[in-house]
Amino acid sequence: MRVGIIGAGSIGLLFAAYLSQVFDVTVYTRSQEQANEIDLHGISLLNGTERTVAEVKALPITDWQGLERLTIIAVKQYQLFSIIERLKQTQTMPEYVLFLQNGMGHLKLLNDLKGNNLFVGSVEHGAQRENLHTVRHNGVSTTNVAVYKGDSEFLKWFTGAVSTVFPMTFQEEYFTMLKKKLIVNAMINPLTAILQVKNGVLVDNPFYYKLLQNLFREITAILNLEHPEEYWGQAIQICQKTADNHSSMLKDVEAKRQTEVDAILGYLLEEANRKGKKSPQLETLYYLIKGKESQWEVIT
Amino acid sequence: MRVGIIGAGSIGLLFAAYLSQVFDVTVYTRSQEQANEIDLHGISLLNGTERTVAEVKALPITDWQGLERLTIIAVKQYQLFSIIERLKQTQTMPEYVLFLQNGMGHLKLLNDLKGNNLFVGSVEHGAQRENLHTVRHNGVSTTNVAVYKGDSEFLKWFTGAVSTVFPMTFQEEYFTMLKKKLIVNAMINPLTAILQVKNGVLVDNPFYYKLLQNLFREITAILNLEHPEEYWGQAIQICQKTADNHSSMLKDVEAKRQTEVDAILGYLLEEANRKGKKSPQLETLYYLIKGKESQWEVIT
Repeated sequence: MRVGIIGAGSIGLLFAAYLSQVFDVTVYTRSQEQANEIDLHGISLLNGTERTVAEVKALPITDWQGLERLTIIAVKQYQLFSIIERLKQTQTMPEYVLFLQNGMGHLKLLNDLKGNNLFVGSVEHGAQRENLHTVRHNGVSTTNVAVYKGDSEFLKWFTGAVSTVFPMTFQEEYFTMLKKKLIVNAMINPLTAILQVKNGVLVDNPFYYKLLQNLFREITAILNLEHPEEYWGQAIQICQKTADNHSSMLKDVEAKRQTEVDAILGYLLEEANRKGKKSPQLETLYYLIKGKESQWEVIT
Repeated sequence: MRVGIIGAGSIGLLFAAYLSQVFDVTVYTRSQEQANEIDLHGISLLNGTERTVAEVKALPITDWQGLERLTIIAVKQYQLFSIIERLKQTQTMPEYVLFLQNGMGHLKLLNDLKGNNLFVGSVEHGAQRENLHTVRHNGVSTTNVAVYKGDSEFLKWFTGAVSTVFPMTFQEEYFTMLKKKLIVNAMINPLTAILQVKNGVLVDNPFYYKLLQNLFREITAILNLEHPEEYWGQAIQICQKTADNHSSMLKDVEAKRQTEVDAILGYLLEEANRKGKKSPQLETLYYLIKGKESQWEVIT
């Protein structure tokens, strides 16, 4: 089966490297330069001290025609808008599309698409792009996937087909799946990015732990969570499991790149606003990050 | 007249250098080493490219006997407790005592003192200690002083007597005076320390400006401010006037020293709690700073 992957950041390269062991993968890059690099060197996948090289076709995104049966959209949420426009304009909408964005802000964009089978995923791997054709897989976990609209048979088959090389977990219910990830992201990402600390520090430092508790209370109220203790437990566990990691937002801040704060906190602030709930803490964190971003020449 | 100054940080050295031009000043230091340095070199006062040296007596704080007519307490708020104990135990309580701490947390400690004439001051100078006997005066402004308890005649005379060398402004009402400074400190210090930016950035960056607005609204409610626009105007003006300065809390964070967050935000949080008001933003900033402090080996 042919698989197209749009986006060659850390997640796009990670998926391309693993999926190419099973499928015929083409990765679509933003720049011609990156496509050339990948054509020349393949994708280097670093796993601890081990390096494997995957031969993967690469083309600039402008050459994308939607010819692959499955297209995986691995761009950041704030880059999604232009991709959605491209999908709308294509003659041949791919049969299956899997969206891997963080947050939940992208869901409303999906309703505009004419595709019959739209899937969403939540990536729990840790990955870092080291150069245009090299990705480090530094936290092996899984990718949760669920049907947003359409056929679950294909997604179940796909999950099974890749599972020997790259764990993927079929989830029945996309909303809860994305909400869990959103809450974890909202708690860990902005604080680690503002404080410039690793994930584990948030639970080790009693003052930061207090911040997590207060923040979680605000999120619980906004989302009307019914069993908050499950979400809380999950967030704390992820902080502990990934104690030595830099969160994706911290990495963005360190590299002075645009962050995903709109996809994560922006979504929650919109929800709060829509429901007439207060969100002073989330708002404080939101403006701290937005202000930081606006201090740089943002690289998107 | 003999004047004793307890504390030889930036403010203590600044006051000692200027007041020694008019009075017989003894500065009391925490360490014998610093007393020796000041005895040996005098206090160097840097003003732009100009350097003047003041001959000042220096003794370690353990030698303090309260023999000077006026004692100026120039330690940080969190060091005040041990000084207050010393004042309580002295046989000869000084006739006049002037307290220069930030915030308003120290007021409740003053009621325990048997002194008849207690004054409070709010220093608006910018000063930085460059070594044990050198201070840079990098923002010339004034010191507001007011009577907390006792005789205003002496304080008015003192204000006039020093005014040719070191501006000092007599204020009728200590509470409003300290409240104004507290509000400015609460708005500027924690944000600049968390973001590691100069004061001016808070008003130049539209997202940080929004943070200031939200924060001010919370402070207004806690303190029941009657004419909030005056306080707001003052805070913004100070941000602009001191645009290139690092706030004292930012300097503390940069030097990994204990900050005055308890004197500033701690006081407001207590007020909020006492009045049953919400303070989610102040609390967020408070824990961010407390958490930072607890990550270092704090130097007091």
